Amino acid sequence: MYDNAIQNLIDQFARLPGIGPKSAQRIAFWMLDQSAEEVATFSAALLSFKAQVHFCQVCFSACEGDLCRICVDERRDLTTLCVVEETKDVFAIERTREFRGRYHVLGGNLSPIDGNGPENLHLRELMSRLAVEPVQEIIIATNPNVNGDATCAYITRLLRPFEDISVSRLASGLPVGGDLEYADEVTLGRAFKGRTAL
Amino acid sequence: MYDNAIQNLIDQFARLPGIGPKSAQRIAFWMLDQSAEEVATFSAALLSFKAQVHFCQVCFSACEGDLCRICVDERRDLTTLCVVEETKDVFAIERTREFRGRYHVLGGNLSPIDGNGPENLHLRELMSRLAVEPVQEIIIATNPNVNGDATCAYITRLLRPFEDISVSRLASGLPVGGDLEYADEVTLGRAFKGRTAL
Repeated sequence: MYDNAIQNLIDQFARLPGIGPKSAQRIAFWMLDQSAEEVATFSAALLSFKAQVHFCQVCFSACEGDLCRICVDERRDLTTLCVVEETKDVFAIERTREFRGRYHVLGGNLSPIDGNGPENLHLRELMSRLAVEPVQEIIIATNPNVNGDATCAYITRLLRPFEDISVSRLASGLPVGGDLEYADEVTLGRAFKGRTAL
Repeated sequence: MYDNAIQNLIDQFARLPGIGPKSAQRIAFWMLDQSAEEVATFSAALLSFKAQVHFCQVCFSACEGDLCRICVDERRDLTTLCVVEETKDVFAIERTREFRGRYHVLGGNLSPIDGNGPENLHLRELMSRLAVEPVQEIIIATNPNVNGDATCAYITRLLRPFEDISVSRLASGLPVGGDLEYADEVTLGRAFKGRTAL
């Protein structure tokens, strides 16, 4: 219904995750009010992102070079490894400043519905790392949901032969600043199970 | 915290209306999974949108040429003119197939808070059109909110000298498929005021 160039841009934005046709239309018309330079900058940011960003050859997080900043940082503790689903989880954990070890990004989770099996995750590469790196502790930090739980269980089974490596998972419980009243029963149940001695 | 190219793309997406930092991050990492061709297509769509889309010289709706499809269409009724705020309103009305006249896009509404006065709207151009076009009826289709009401009132006053032109506004009332129970009191009040004889 719109002219080609307009409809085309709306379609492109509507393909993005979390953006529906109405939002896409709103964004496209917003673009019309931006200067040509600003639109060119946006367009260039997309191209340079795709051209420059790759996956770290060791941990598979998204980065600009062959290796990510964390993998090349010699001050990081090589004996602990944190296994996460996505690159953004790495940065979420980095922001806590609680972890000084290295990461391994799986590139997703086990999700039979989406056809995501173990072969789609960087699990073989995890095993290879364990063969050469002096890892003593593995912290599984997959998301606390059905897929994340399944992925965690699978990895735990995979790691059982490594008897000298301690395997743990991030605590599940009440979010800080939350209200007991508004916590769902599963979260509250896990908080009970994982209660800590004072 | 992220590498430059990643943070840069996240920042670009976070500038878009209705997209927060979390959504921007989600979209950026989604882009990483797209092929280079798909990202190039997106990037090109932005550039060609900005290069090709301008405003119609008659009605100021966004289109690819000098004049929009509606203004060049000789079958449209030249005696009725529908005044809307934005180009997307033109297409919303076109979808109803109820209106066969032409449009005039104001390019916004009167909003003292945002510093949008009458001089920011295409009102002078509207007056010029009335001088040369055989307009007999003007339908004001600004949004049914505070700014739209103010804009409508302003235009009505502006059109008062044109005694041979009938001016009307889109009906305000209950949305079709809606529930009386859930209608807000202002809408319900307007539905009463604008009740139609059976």
